[in-house]
Amino acid sequence: MAGPALAVSVSQAGGLGFLGPGVQTHHLLTDLQEISDRVKSLQQSPPWSKIPLLPVGVGFQLWSDDQETAIAAIERYKPCAAWLYAPRDPQRDYELWSRRIRTVSAKTQIWIQIGTLAEVRELLRGQEWPDVIVVQGAEAGGHGRAHDGLGLITLLPEVDDLVAGRIPLFAAGGIADGRGASAARCLGASGVVMGTRFLASQEARISSGYQQEIVRASDGAASTTKTLVYNHLRGTTGWPTEYSPRTIINQSFIDHQQGRPFDELRELHDQALQAGDSGWGPSGRLATYAGASIGLIHEVKSAASIVHEVQGAVRKRLREEAEEKEKEEE
Amino acid sequence: MAGPALAVSVSQAGGLGFLGPGVQTHHLLTDLQEISDRVKSLQQSPPWSKIPLLPVGVGFQLWSDDQETAIAAIERYKPCAAWLYAPRDPQRDYELWSRRIRTVSAKTQIWIQIGTLAEVRELLRGQEWPDVIVVQGAEAGGHGRAHDGLGLITLLPEVDDLVAGRIPLFAAGGIADGRGASAARCLGASGVVMGTRFLASQEARISSGYQQEIVRASDGAASTTKTLVYNHLRGTTGWPTEYSPRTIINQSFIDHQQGRPFDELRELHDQALQAGDSGWGPSGRLATYAGASIGLIHEVKSAASIVHEVQGAVRKRLREEAEEKEKEEE
Repeated sequence: MAGPALAVSVSQAGGLGFLGPGVQTHHLLTDLQEISDRVKSLQQSPPWSKIPLLPVGVGFQLWSDDQETAIAAIERYKPCAAWLYAPRDPQRDYELWSRRIRTVSAKTQIWIQIGTLAEVRELLRGQEWPDVIVVQGAEAGGHGRAHDGLGLITLLPEVDDLVAGRIPLFAAGGIADGRGASAARCLGASGVVMGTRFLASQEARISSGYQQEIVRASDGAASTTKTLVYNHLRGTTGWPTEYSPRTIINQSFIDHQQGRPFDELRELHDQALQAGDSGWGPSGRLATYAGASIGLIHEVKSAASIVHEVQGAVRKRLREEAEEKEKEEE
Repeated sequence: MAGPALAVSVSQAGGLGFLGPGVQTHHLLTDLQEISDRVKSLQQSPPWSKIPLLPVGVGFQLWSDDQETAIAAIERYKPCAAWLYAPRDPQRDYELWSRRIRTVSAKTQIWIQIGTLAEVRELLRGQEWPDVIVVQGAEAGGHGRAHDGLGLITLLPEVDDLVAGRIPLFAAGGIADGRGASAARCLGASGVVMGTRFLASQEARISSGYQQEIVRASDGAASTTKTLVYNHLRGTTGWPTEYSPRTIINQSFIDHQQGRPFDELRELHDQALQAGDSGWGPSGRLATYAGASIGLIHEVKSAASIVHEVQGAVRKRLREEAEEKEKEEE
């Protein structure tokens, strides 16, 4: 749901926008061409104008993406960053992709996303260290660790101790405003990544029904769950067994829990798909992948205002906290 | 495991020490008398010397504690705070306990611990608001929400929005050093509470084998789990079904997962109990309740040094972060 419009807007606002992984890798070429065109047509000189790279990153799901197509796209468009995730064989796939990306675009930064300490240990044993480790906590939306992940409050400082400053850490999962972003920095992150917050951006490539449900839903712990049932309903198969997606609970999940036969669920799901926007919401049946931060998201905003608000809130909070502490010490 | 020595040491160092809930409520009277004696015998004049209350808090498990004994103890010793948790009937029990505590000791602060947004909503609808809400994330050790809890990264700001400054929030679960404490403040907490970190304090009332396991274990997400099997092995029954304890995984849990009959597990557990300190550790069989912060705890320290280090680290980090941001802005 992160397409060219969102990616360019985030970068223009002072963040780094990403194209999300596509259903088919070759869609990437169309999106990157659109980004390239959009960047060329920008009137104002943006902060990145001196960087000889396309000012966006690209996300890859290694288990499903076609490596040849991906490498060709990186060679041609030279994005700022390639975000690698969910390989079938982490040790082999991360090294191979990293080496090939560096060969075709030496300045493209390599980001690898992990959700457990064991994955970090394995990365550090390898030959090709990434430029950034994205530490994904259990509150993240969409796919994350199925069974062995916990929240950022302990995972991030434990990774911080292990990595010991050798690779910058970015925090993912449950961050939707300046509070989470500030907290992540305290826990050891140099930066944060936000997904669910941008589902409720004007530039997201998302159905209105889906987006309205992100805005409506609250109480992340009670309203979301990890389940494979929506993957099955959508016909998405092949994710490595370590992963499972967090989604907003709706009627498909409730019926599934109550033992309703899958064939019936699929029929109702497919009808909902035809119906469109009414297929999302508490009585809807469509997949509504989202993180536990939904309760912190109350309106659709421009990507730029999201970036500015989070960055501004981090600055303000840190200043206030420091002043408060100074007062306490006096 | 938080007895008089630990509680007084924490308070003396500038925190607020708590007596943990006892197996039997009347043990509290012995502990409070010991605290009273310790406080009287302190040589130096501590910061609390002008407060007409005993400088510690007391934890209560409402489902198991005897209310008459508890109220009599509060009336007699007037602790700074009473921490209420795990009632059978939250609406009725919190109000009743709060009213009775305020009647016998008006200045004793009432803390109520919750793990979900729904519990906060219920508290706010009630007549007797607590003085502090302790927001317990899923990383917490010992008993927490069994199924409907998530980590502090989303739960705390969502509670913060709901409470909107009307009641101070303290953060619990996964906090063991200055990073977690600083992060909790960013997320909306006025203060933090730490349990697992103090299991590895010199003053904890804990077996050496248990304490050494807290120090040894790492990777909180992989090494701990929520399970009722240790409660069953110990013969602990009666916890309301909303709760389940986080514990370090050892042989009892592994065997239980593999389907070994419970009677065999109990026999091996009881043998381990006889053996003492060797009953803890990866091949041990005894309950090792602990939070996911175990990977951040590497040595046994005095309670005073834990309090000083966390407070010092929070001050230092907030100053550094603010300076860093100022530089970025220049």
